This record gives sequence, C-alpha cells and structure tokens, in this order.
Amino acid sequence: MAYQGIIETYRPLLNIPEGMRAISMLEGNTPLIPVPKIADRLGGGFDLRVKFEGLNPTGSFKDRGMTVAVSEAAHRGAKTVICASTGNTAASAAAYAARAGMRAIVIIPAGKVAAGKLAGAIAYGAQVIQIDGSFDDALSLVVAISNKHPIALVNSLNPFRLEGQKSAAFELCETLGSAPDWLALPVGNAGNITAYWMGFKQYHEKKKTVLPQILGVQAAGAAPLVLGHPVEHPETIATAIRIGKPARGEEAVTAASESHGRIIAASDEEILAAQKLLASSGIWVEPASAAGLSGLIKEVDSGSLNLSGKKVVIVCTGHGLKDPDIITAQFTKPQVVKSELAELEKVILHD
Amino acid sequence: MAYQGIIETYRPLLNIPEGMRAISMLEGNTPLIPVPKIADRLGGGFDLRVKFEGLNPTGSFKDRGMTVAVSEAAHRGAKTVICASTGNTAASAAAYAARAGMRAIVIIPAGKVAAGKLAGAIAYGAQVIQIDGSFDDALSLVVAISNKHPIALVNSLNPFRLEGQKSAAFELCETLGSAPDWLALPVGNAGNITAYWMGFKQYHEKKKTVLPQILGVQAAGAAPLVLGHPVEHPETIATAIRIGKPARGEEAVTAASESHGRIIAASDEEILAAQKLLASSGIWVEPASAAGLSGLIKEVDSGSLNLSGKKVVIVCTGHGLKDPDIITAQFTKPQVVKSELAELEKVILHD
Repeated sequence: MAYQGIIETYRPLLNIPEGMRAISMLEGNTPLIPVPKIADRLGGGFDLRVKFEGLNPTGSFKDRGMTVAVSEAAHRGAKTVICASTGNTAASAAAYAARAGMRAIVIIPAGKVAAGKLAGAIAYGAQVIQIDGSFDDALSLVVAISNKHPIALVNSLNPFRLEGQKSAAFELCETLGSAPDWLALPVGNAGNITAYWMGFKQYHEKKKTVLPQILGVQAAGAAPLVLGHPVEHPETIATAIRIGKPARGEEAVTAASESHGRIIAASDEEILAAQKLLASSGIWVEPASAAGLSGLIKEVDSGSLNLSGKKVVIVCTGHGLKDPDIITAQFTKPQVVKSELAELEKVILHD
Repeated sequence: MAYQGIIETYRPLLNIPEGMRAISMLEGNTPLIPVPKIADRLGGGFDLRVKFEGLNPTGSFKDRGMTVAVSEAAHRGAKTVICASTGNTAASAAAYAARAGMRAIVIIPAGKVAAGKLAGAIAYGAQVIQIDGSFDDALSLVVAISNKHPIALVNSLNPFRLEGQKSAAFELCETLGSAPDWLALPVGNAGNITAYWMGFKQYHEKKKTVLPQILGVQAAGAAPLVLGHPVEHPETIATAIRIGKPARGEEAVTAASESHGRIIAASDEEILAAQKLLASSGIWVEPASAAGLSGLIKEVDSGSLNLSGKKVVIVCTGHGLKDPDIITAQFTKPQVVKSELAELEKVILHD
C-alpha cells in the first residue's frame, strides 16, 4: 500500500472528527538521515540523525499540522482560514487551503520574513497582509478576527495542528524501533515541542516505545522560556522562531521538565555555525532549523550532556531553500571567469 | 525496515560497481500526489497524479542520479567532482560531495540561474564559478577539464547519473502497480527522459509492469529536439531547461518514439499558467517543472490527446522554493496595514 499521508496513516491515533475527509498532499514520511560526521564532531560513539522536516510538501514541518487543521475546518464547513505567521505557517496554510478550495488569509509581521516563505504563500494564492507589528501582535489579531467572524484559525492554538504534528514522534518511534534517547529541536511558538511530547507519550502508552529527553532550543534574542518572561522585541536571524510570547509556552516548559530535558538558548552565531555544519553533511536547513544542533553542541562542549551510546535525533524543521538570502548575504559571491579552458584551469587548479 | 535511499533500495537493478558504498541522504521515495481538480480541468474521467521530485533532499530530482554518481566517484578514489549546471545539478553535486568529504566545482552560465539554486550550491560548500557563456559552453568546458585532470564529471553524461534517475520509474510502477499510461515531463539536457525510459523498460522486463507513452515538453525558446537542430541562444523563464544542445538529445528522441509518445514545445506563458494551476492544488514547483503539465494541457485542448480512463503522471522535477523570484516578480506585493483589528477587518472583509 503506497503511503497515504499522515491522516490516513495515523487516523486511529488522532483525536479528529469521525468521517473527516483528509485534505492531504502526502505530507510526513520524511527521512531520518544519519550524520556520523557531526556525531564525531560531538565526541562520537553515539547514533545521531536528522529528521529532515524540510522535505514536507511546502518545505517545512508545518504541513503535518496543517493537513489536519484544514481538513477539520473544511469538515465543519469553513470557507476561509486565517493565521499569523513568520512564514512557514503561511505557506502551509495557503497550500492546504488552496487544495481544499478555501480562501487563506495570512498575517505576517513587519520585516524579516524570509523571501522563500513569502513567495510560497503568494504562489499558493493566499491573501498576504503585512502588519506594522510583531508576530505576537499578528497572533493577537487573528485570534480576535476568528473569534468575531466565521473564519477558521489555523495557528497552533488550533488543537488539530498539534494532532497532526505529533505524527513526527510516531514516525521516529517506528523508524528507530523506539523513541530516541534525546530529541533536540528549535522552540519558537512552542507548538512543535508540545506536539512531539504528546506524540511520544501516546506512542509509549500504546507500544512501549519509551520516552526521550527533550532539548528545546530558543534563539538567544527570542528566548522567553529561558528568561522566564515575554520578550517585547524579539530579534534573531532565525526568523522562524523570532517569537517573544509563545502561544504554547507553558506546555513547552512542561514537556522539557516531564521529559527530564531542558530549554536553553543559543546565539545567532552558534545557530549559523550549526547550519554550516549540517550543510557540510549535505543537509541545508533554514537558520531556525539549526537551533537544535546548536544547542546540542553547546551542551556537549560545556560538559552538561554525555551522549555516549545514545540514540539522538535533531529535528530540522524547514529547508534551507526557505531562506536563501542568509546564504547569499554571508558567503562569497561566485567567481566570474571567461568561458575558456585555460582561464577555468587557472581558477580551479591554483585554488 | 526503514527506507534506505535509492542505492540500497534498488541495488540489484542498478548497474554499479560491486561493493560500492552508498553516499546517500535517503533521496527518492517521493510522494505521488493526486490532483483531481487538475484532471477535471483537462476533461476529467482519468487518474492524474504529480510525482513531486522537489521533495528530494536538495529540492530536485537530481539527487537520484547524484547519489550514484558521487558514490561511484568516491568508490574509485576521486577527490573532486565537477559539473556544469543551470542550478539544480550544482546544488545536488555540492551536497553529495560535501557528504562524501569531496571537493565540488560547479560551473554555471552567465545570468538566469535561480536564486535558491545558487544559494544551495554555496551553502553546501561548492566552489561556484560563473562563466560568461551558456550552459552548453559550460558543459563543453567541464568535459574538457574532466578529460584532462583527475576530476570526476557528474553531469548526466556520466552514466551513473542515469542509473540513479531511473529509480523514479521503478517507484512509479510500485506505487501504481504498473507503469502509468502517459508520463509527462520537462526536457532540458534530456537525461531524465532517457533515464525514465530505461527504468520503465527494465522494470517491465523484470515485472511486466507495461510501458508508458512519454510526453516530453521543452520550452519554446529552448526546443532543439522539437526544431530538430541546436538552439544557439536558448531563452526561457524555465531556467532549469534553458539548454540548446541537450547532451542526451538522441536518447530522448528515441524514448519518445519507442514509447509512441512525442516531444513538444510550450511557451513561457503556457508554462507559467501550468505552474499556477499546480499551486492551486497545493503543489508549488519551479517553472521548468510545470512544463509537463503545460504540454498535457496543450495536447488535450487541441484534441491530440484523449486521456479518458487513463493513468497519467506529471513529473515535477524541482520545488517552487528553488525560484522564488519568479513569484515575487509577477504577483502583487503583500498589503501593508496598521496593527489594529478595525484596519485588518477593512482589508479582509471588504476584499
């Protein structure tokens, strides 16, 4: 039987309306890629893999939750969906709404939404509105709109988003034969860490797959869960987690503590270094997606974490293609040479 | 058993050195997404699906061939790989070379390489060299370099590329239970159409999965196989197939005729209309990847093709994220509004 997408694959495990038709693009079923060179960088002697969620249909993990949220909205007759987004949610909502024949409205904060994400939302036909405020302002506005008008909210406040996102935990347990010992992932609005924890607990209850310890990683300039208070003006190069008041903050803190893990912060420099390290193993992710690895590196280098003999998974939430500008801005421009063999040899052989 | 990438999955069917270690990122295993709304646009009454190759690790189908080409190069001790590229090959070669610990040199033509692709090659650490010539000039140069120096050529002239790429045909036969009746795909350097035909023939010989008819589609401004002669200055918005002298041109023509199919040309306007149609079903692809659908639309609308009762597959070779500029240049800019409920309501409700 060919893969059917996460709703059909996991329907009995999802808390969704009976008979709900799946609006699906066969999201999920993403590869779990071994990265032995990176494990060696971290001391070696353990199994390190990347769950590459950037290979979902719109290029980020958001599709797992969106297939469920949009299917449920369509099931109860909604004609329009709305969300606030730093970009990935926007593209995903736009894609699934288009597929369902629904209108999508996405509200993005001023500035700093990565180019690839905005283009996606537009390409899929969403109405894209930029407000002169932060992500947190945008989220407040869409909540108000959806409370007042017959428009379905598809941010991760929508519980059906988490129902879909927890499928990634199921997949990990199936691929590995159990939960990993450690799971490291970025934390922005905190829906994903919440969903993984839900998923691991549910699968463990059902199939005794044990529970992982969770390392949540925020960007230092947008680390409300590390600081213990909201951040009014979050700033980080990792735009996908540039969020000062996480909607699922409490659940995230609970997930970290229940799992005997923790939530830490990494600087933009540490995040970019981790992005480069992942790319050197062939996995190009957007900056936020490198947060998990940057946190692991920090913990191992400081001696706070011993991974010897463990199974460790890094969740990379979005593809590097989502944010090409970060590369072109930082790396050297391509050399331009004459279209002649001798000229090319000079550049190649004497390099 | 978890999915192992195309070399391990299809090793007995691939003509590769015995004992060759796989340099893999678990490429392949891409979804075959039903697009019933688009089938209806084409008259309905048939099964239409998109093989979404943009969900390979670097965002294009090139990874299928590159895993084999780079593994083989590593197997024989090569330390450096080189390729000419309109962008997708560059990113893929760079990623697999990085993973193998090899140096990658990519030569791209002047102008018109999509932003996301170039950023990818740079991110994965390749030496990117732009020449003041066309793709065809770049290909001649890398052939000369690889003949003269111990540098492995990984363009699709390298037969191991085709060995990998034919795996997409195997996957289609497995998912559908047989080959489709029609396969529509873009034709640029013509390695992919050649590889699909090889794959379908091989699988049919082995498993009696029948043979499809193949519709190859070139961009009208870069249609040497339709015109019957090379195109000196190929021009098209579909940069991935902006090629005037296809390296596998003869094989492509043979594939089309042996399969009782054909190679046709579609205008940039037709390609962009097909791109929009795919996005309205939630599948955002780069322009070249919409060529297959644009060709199907042309043939059906002109009465040359009756798809009633058929199984039809469109191959979409690369993700829309590869070329965001084409979207941002053509679509309307996002509206900017004040961060206030009343302002937002005005824009949303009176739209």
